[in-house]
Amino acid sequence: MADDAPPGISRWAIRVEFDGRHYVGWQRQKSGLAVQQLIEEAARYIVNGRLVTSITSGRTDAGVHASGLVAHLDFPDDAPLTAKAVRDGINYHLKPHPVVILEAAAVPANWNARFSATWRRYRYSILNRPSRPTLHEGRVWHVRHGLDIERMQEAAQHLCGYHDFSSFRAAACQAKDALRTLDELSIRREGEMVFIETQARSFLHHQVRNMVGTLALVGGRRWHPDRVKTALEARNRSKAGPTAPPDGLCLIGVGYPNDPFRY
Amino acid sequence: MADDAPPGISRWAIRVEFDGRHYVGWQRQKSGLAVQQLIEEAARYIVNGRLVTSITSGRTDAGVHASGLVAHLDFPDDAPLTAKAVRDGINYHLKPHPVVILEAAAVPANWNARFSATWRRYRYSILNRPSRPTLHEGRVWHVRHGLDIERMQEAAQHLCGYHDFSSFRAAACQAKDALRTLDELSIRREGEMVFIETQARSFLHHQVRNMVGTLALVGGRRWHPDRVKTALEARNRSKAGPTAPPDGLCLIGVGYPNDPFRY
Repeated sequence: MADDAPPGISRWAIRVEFDGRHYVGWQRQKSGLAVQQLIEEAARYIVNGRLVTSITSGRTDAGVHASGLVAHLDFPDDAPLTAKAVRDGINYHLKPHPVVILEAAAVPANWNARFSATWRRYRYSILNRPSRPTLHEGRVWHVRHGLDIERMQEAAQHLCGYHDFSSFRAAACQAKDALRTLDELSIRREGEMVFIETQARSFLHHQVRNMVGTLALVGGRRWHPDRVKTALEARNRSKAGPTAPPDGLCLIGVGYPNDPFRY
Repeated sequence: MADDAPPGISRWAIRVEFDGRHYVGWQRQKSGLAVQQLIEEAARYIVNGRLVTSITSGRTDAGVHASGLVAHLDFPDDAPLTAKAVRDGINYHLKPHPVVILEAAAVPANWNARFSATWRRYRYSILNRPSRPTLHEGRVWHVRHGLDIERMQEAAQHLCGYHDFSSFRAAACQAKDALRTLDELSIRREGEMVFIETQARSFLHHQVRNMVGTLALVGGRRWHPDRVKTALEARNRSKAGPTAPPDGLCLIGVGYPNDPFRY
């Protein structure tokens, strides 16, 4: 398989947390600083500058956060590395950026952070109150109007399962088709906070933020829950709601049949 | 009573949330910006610059946060105010500071944010893991070594109840005596986070942070839980543990026999 580690390489899985506010996202862009670039540069320090390449479980957009992004790094296999040395060494060189490695684990050459992943899980956080955020600034979407959670839960049922999600897909999405299986889309309130959690094998570009923007229309009683079904069936982006801001979105986990961090 | 509102004044209770990182605390200081100053200046805008005075339920230290500080504001009584106008008007003029009024309520002239309060409640948040904070930066104390919650819970029992808390009192504390009744001191873990919540009619200066710093010694197995009892009985600041940093501390609520926000 083309993505297996080449000979002479040792492959390490890493679980990454970052505050996405200051970055253009995971992937390198000409427009600013990318998380991938920071991690690769920090990783080179621990192997005397020798080439390190990284593959992520999935890109994140500018401003989107992660508490459980998984990637893998390929190091020269003569480097004497331990899980602790990889984690602490990279973290030391990542300072003062709000990006850290939470865990590192050696993985076999045929393990791939992107292709071995069987699910991705996101949490979207809404601060639902009249006053703007202070302690949560940059990490929530501030929605002033009331949100009826039961209506949102009803609407979410239309999105769960196997569907063509063209109505919830960014124009720039590069996926071959919009057919995806949404395994979970749950909504709960905790005081002033509303949390939307969702899990799928993979998501389309902006899919989570587009689903959240649409659910907020339902929660605010501007849409009947059944209109989400109509929007989905239209397979037309203009029929669904707006894209919710990146601030509230956090990639909280990625799953693997052989989870490298549980071994 | 000297603290009753003078004639010609209308008194409003406010519940305040702020990110304490950028401020010297609630109270005006020569060393920097105080939350009280920001709120009074914003409040003057809604009554055409006429004098507004404020009294808080309790001061907070530099860097300490609040999600439920209560204060009262005295406005001229000919100002046509509503709860929404007080909240939204002050919030408008507080921008872009991370300080907001969550709720406002008209209170009688003999209601006093400080003297009518019957309890204060704080939450102290510890991020307990090897990697430094990113998403929680500035709002947690980062403790790298393991914390044994059961040991901390055992030690906390020695502090609950009526005691002389001289060992947990800052040298600068201005209270007449150190006798206080601690109604609650609970510790719980949620994944990488450890939350310590405590409630009392009133606290001494640095009391919560000094208790947390001491409990962390117990949790890290440097102290036996019973040593907290010995430290308390010594009535000597040097016998207790260090002062935990302000970052993790948040004033989450203040209680009143007639809660103005529940009427």
